[in-house]
Amino acid sequence: MSRFWSSVVHNLSPYVPGEQPKIAGLVKLNTNENPYPPSPRALAAIAAAVDRLRLYPDPHATLLRETIAARYGVAPDEVFVGNGSDEVLAHTFQALLKHDAPLLFPDITYSFYPVYCGLYAVGYEEVPLDAAMRIALADYRRPCSAVLLANPNAPTGIALPRDAIEALVAERPDRLVVIDEAYVDFGAESAVPLVISHDNLLVVQTLSKSRALAGLRVGFAIGQRPLIEALERVKDSFNSYPLDCLAIAGATAALEDDAWFQETRQRIITSREALAHDLSTLGFEVLPSHANFVFARHPGHRGADLAARLRERGVLVRHFKKPRIEDFLRITVGTEDECGRLIALLRD
Amino acid sequence: MSRFWSSVVHNLSPYVPGEQPKIAGLVKLNTNENPYPPSPRALAAIAAAVDRLRLYPDPHATLLRETIAARYGVAPDEVFVGNGSDEVLAHTFQALLKHDAPLLFPDITYSFYPVYCGLYAVGYEEVPLDAAMRIALADYRRPCSAVLLANPNAPTGIALPRDAIEALVAERPDRLVVIDEAYVDFGAESAVPLVISHDNLLVVQTLSKSRALAGLRVGFAIGQRPLIEALERVKDSFNSYPLDCLAIAGATAALEDDAWFQETRQRIITSREALAHDLSTLGFEVLPSHANFVFARHPGHRGADLAARLRERGVLVRHFKKPRIEDFLRITVGTEDECGRLIALLRD
Repeated sequence: MSRFWSSVVHNLSPYVPGEQPKIAGLVKLNTNENPYPPSPRALAAIAAAVDRLRLYPDPHATLLRETIAARYGVAPDEVFVGNGSDEVLAHTFQALLKHDAPLLFPDITYSFYPVYCGLYAVGYEEVPLDAAMRIALADYRRPCSAVLLANPNAPTGIALPRDAIEALVAERPDRLVVIDEAYVDFGAESAVPLVISHDNLLVVQTLSKSRALAGLRVGFAIGQRPLIEALERVKDSFNSYPLDCLAIAGATAALEDDAWFQETRQRIITSREALAHDLSTLGFEVLPSHANFVFARHPGHRGADLAARLRERGVLVRHFKKPRIEDFLRITVGTEDECGRLIALLRD
Repeated sequence: MSRFWSSVVHNLSPYVPGEQPKIAGLVKLNTNENPYPPSPRALAAIAAAVDRLRLYPDPHATLLRETIAARYGVAPDEVFVGNGSDEVLAHTFQALLKHDAPLLFPDITYSFYPVYCGLYAVGYEEVPLDAAMRIALADYRRPCSAVLLANPNAPTGIALPRDAIEALVAERPDRLVVIDEAYVDFGAESAVPLVISHDNLLVVQTLSKSRALAGLRVGFAIGQRPLIEALERVKDSFNSYPLDCLAIAGATAALEDDAWFQETRQRIITSREALAHDLSTLGFEVLPSHANFVFARHPGHRGADLAARLRERGVLVRHFKKPRIEDFLRITVGTEDECGRLIALLRD
């Protein structure tokens, strides 16, 4: 610490992302990356955009916002884009979730949410998942300014159906609902179609998972105009150009390649079901996942031990040292070969 | 506005960057971009990095920080990197410039500074430039927590020598000094060598200008470890990966290509001197610039009129509707041809 630190710095507990090892040959099932490469059209668009690097990017990323709007049936000014959904979420906390009444989110969810609360002094309460690790929406009927849910939830992978989200949104029009749909493309129902009729709903997505562009850093939010304007005001007071010209070009092309998207996500869904089945056969309890990972525990082994022993044998999975989930492993769905190698190791 | 806006959103006055026109054929001298392309080695490194896009980037951007450290003679953990120097500055405001006593910066300087103050509720006072539009350091001897100076200053282009910065830093060790060196590579003296002996100095630079990578969004800060740690704590509570894998690769390669850097910046310096001379010959008052732009006014013409008439003829320059400088034009140093076209138009 230092006498120059602003007071907020002292109390921050920064988020720790999953390991990005520099060791070659590891089977990396720890950060929910896509096992398949991004669309070849995205790579071609990036290669064509290098000629523009000496110039600033379009600060409004108009081309990308128009493409997202067309795909999701909204207007371009109902779309906000940022440097990964993490940046979009950060701006959302500052612009829309800081109020006198607390924000509510589950006790077991994306562990960046309480970190943002620390950064922006947002009051919050954690609402416990039920005994089956599901979000129980009835438990969110308490005084609050907003509700933030990951759907599917992380790290459980369990999804709520769209009609449940709609009931939550309709129940109290004065309460903002933010749905973080980082994993929605692997089989869950998106809340985006509800935006047109609900001004208290913001939906956040990312190109890191289903578009295989974790390395490019592009996320977006969809909501009615006043919500998007709040995000734009904060973004334009923070950094005019969070998306570089390569990210704008690559993300736009990736969103336009629907065939690639459908094929790769279907392949991951198929592998997930096979992985869940194989884990169950080995005696694991596997939560029902709609994401590109499964969350599983074995009654005979501690989660930390399993994760450490897999790592010794060249397979990385994610383990959280946190009450209620310390015996679970979060396992990213890899290729068929990668999943097979994991199962073979676990069988040993 | 909306009932969902956090209170900070209502009072923001976002920064408005220079126009990025979509019209082809314009001579673009309005946003201080480099008229020459980035190093071919940067483009090759980007092309080689597309294979890694499905994976998250290194959250610590270790390779880039090591390269910056080697070049500037500091340790890698004395380097912080971000999504353009705008993001680095934003984190600096939140992490290091928010205190009870005000922050001081010039009344005429980079107009993003008061915007950041609005975003993070940082108290500040503007210190007037002197009659010759210079920073008068004696005027900064008033109660404050920190001093922020652009050196060379923008939009004047006027630079302070390193020994003046050193005197400022040494005068009060309990006061943080932040030097924004976005334009330093065009002939001014960097304060980076002072970091080793002063723990109250942070120096911010960018690859957008002298490295011709405005479209890639890479900036950095150099300071002693406690200052860098404050920035890391805020960054890791905001967005784990603000630099995508292409930006890390391209920036690293650009910094390694010293020959390209030296050749292009020298060419810009030569063009700047020619442009300043030609403008003086036409009756302009031209401030002495150490940047890649000149700041000039003509006694016979209003700045807004000149900017509008140049735009009609296909040449964009930047004009600020602000007291004291409303009759000035900020003209980016373009290629020899671009500068020639501007001078020919002004002569008419």
